[in-house]
Amino acid sequence: MEQFEVHILGCGSALPTMRHNASSQIVRVGNELLMIDCGEGTQLQIRKSHQHFARINHVFISHLHGDHCFGLIGMISTFGLLGRKLPLHIYAHPMLRTLLTPQLEFFCKGMPYEVILHDINPEEQKIIFESKTITVETLPLNHRIPCCGFLISEKPKKRHIKPDMLEFYKIPTYARPKLREGEDYVTPEGEIIANERLTTPPDRSRSYAYCSDTAPCPSIIDKIRGVDLLYHEATFANKERGRAQETFHSTAQQAATIARDAEVKNLVIGHFSSRYDDEQLLLDEAREIFPCTTLANENKTLKI
Amino acid sequence: MEQFEVHILGCGSALPTMRHNASSQIVRVGNELLMIDCGEGTQLQIRKSHQHFARINHVFISHLHGDHCFGLIGMISTFGLLGRKLPLHIYAHPMLRTLLTPQLEFFCKGMPYEVILHDINPEEQKIIFESKTITVETLPLNHRIPCCGFLISEKPKKRHIKPDMLEFYKIPTYARPKLREGEDYVTPEGEIIANERLTTPPDRSRSYAYCSDTAPCPSIIDKIRGVDLLYHEATFANKERGRAQETFHSTAQQAATIARDAEVKNLVIGHFSSRYDDEQLLLDEAREIFPCTTLANENKTLKI
Repeated sequence: MEQFEVHILGCGSALPTMRHNASSQIVRVGNELLMIDCGEGTQLQIRKSHQHFARINHVFISHLHGDHCFGLIGMISTFGLLGRKLPLHIYAHPMLRTLLTPQLEFFCKGMPYEVILHDINPEEQKIIFESKTITVETLPLNHRIPCCGFLISEKPKKRHIKPDMLEFYKIPTYARPKLREGEDYVTPEGEIIANERLTTPPDRSRSYAYCSDTAPCPSIIDKIRGVDLLYHEATFANKERGRAQETFHSTAQQAATIARDAEVKNLVIGHFSSRYDDEQLLLDEAREIFPCTTLANENKTLKI
Repeated sequence: MEQFEVHILGCGSALPTMRHNASSQIVRVGNELLMIDCGEGTQLQIRKSHQHFARINHVFISHLHGDHCFGLIGMISTFGLLGRKLPLHIYAHPMLRTLLTPQLEFFCKGMPYEVILHDINPEEQKIIFESKTITVETLPLNHRIPCCGFLISEKPKKRHIKPDMLEFYKIPTYARPKLREGEDYVTPEGEIIANERLTTPPDRSRSYAYCSDTAPCPSIIDKIRGVDLLYHEATFANKERGRAQETFHSTAQQAATIARDAEVKNLVIGHFSSRYDDEQLLLDEAREIFPCTTLANENKTLKI
């Protein structure tokens, strides 16, 4: 199966600490590296993670708080200095265009590649990016400013051919792609061979949901139902539930409740408040509700 | 003597690496922390260095290349989140106002403190900041865009009183400040006691010059003559002299030549190109010309 994994570059919250960088992660799907959020210092985190700068072509920004986007201008400049040629696509709230364009014009004049900004509406669920194998969809969240998560889903895959049956029916090579798409085979004599005799079901399509920053947002539950991995912010512990409510963030237990109700396979929590020297408390609280929970951490890779 | 020291937060050049952060340093003069330049990641470097965020009130930006200013917006935001009350003064080319103001308005709305931008003209030598004990002066440099260094000088200090002579002449307390400023003392009987009998000369006033980024710039030599410490960029080794010339940077030997010709006491070189895994070569080349040279490094403190 094609690689599908999440590499955490930063899982801190508004105040970066010596333990956690501002939000950013790379989702690898096959050869494609998608970046989600780009807090200050992200370019250095990419370097530390040994990910290939040149293979990041699409950056998705959940919302315009600094800890999710202050790293863009530095990363864009560095890509230019490294001689990048391919355009870089950035998907964000339209306000990013207003804020970033003057900076690009001043700091990045004469760069050897283009930065293409795509406006997204964080308040609607919509497919904003599509490749051969995946789609990226916005997931409206509930934060202090317009904010969306992202649902990255593999497209339906092709069925597997049973080699022995192909041989048995002497099916020519040119007919195989259609079989993989589920069509029946018609022999030269006009006999119909049901596809189920010739193929086995395709691999399951996997999916990953990124939900940060948000107050508990029950409206996402149906949209992320059954995903293989959910990254959900868990800025606070139970004790700071009031603070979470005031700031439109979630506690670890609220994140776990969403994960449980959406029947996701695994939950990884992140966006930790700088007040915790150790997130074990957050993990313990989340696991009371949803045992398949892990803690995000810089340089951690989660296979999907 | 009052503390006067330079704390290096970052001494890399345009491309941050795992070894060197983008340019930034803190100059401590007594209780005052002055920041020079603020590349991406500076706020994290301050945290690592255990310097007090709250005591940084003045930031001097040499020029508007990203590796010298991309850290401003993140640091400013963090200061706000930490509840800062005192205004933060930033001294920079007027273009920073154009670029930073929209970002401040969007990202820093409602912050509990004020950011005050001071326009400076990098092309003139001028005192741009003055406290009780020091002055900060611009030093025009020769880079691809307008750029200046900074000369931080202690003001002339007061003379030291000889306690035994005060007692001998029964000089009252109220008369002492004037003696420290060099005035003679007149006894109630009208006798003039020469100041030299009552005091010893003041401590020497120290000075520090920061010169980055620049091609070799002989016009600074007289302006920085005899400084206690010179930080000079040394982006390249001799071998890359052509590249230095093209990009308006200096080699380590060119930095050392400036130090030698300006008869400075000590030279520290920085702003290293990312191509060097080890700056020993730069140090060796500089020391051939000016032996009192050291290498900058993150978290290194240089006493002046």
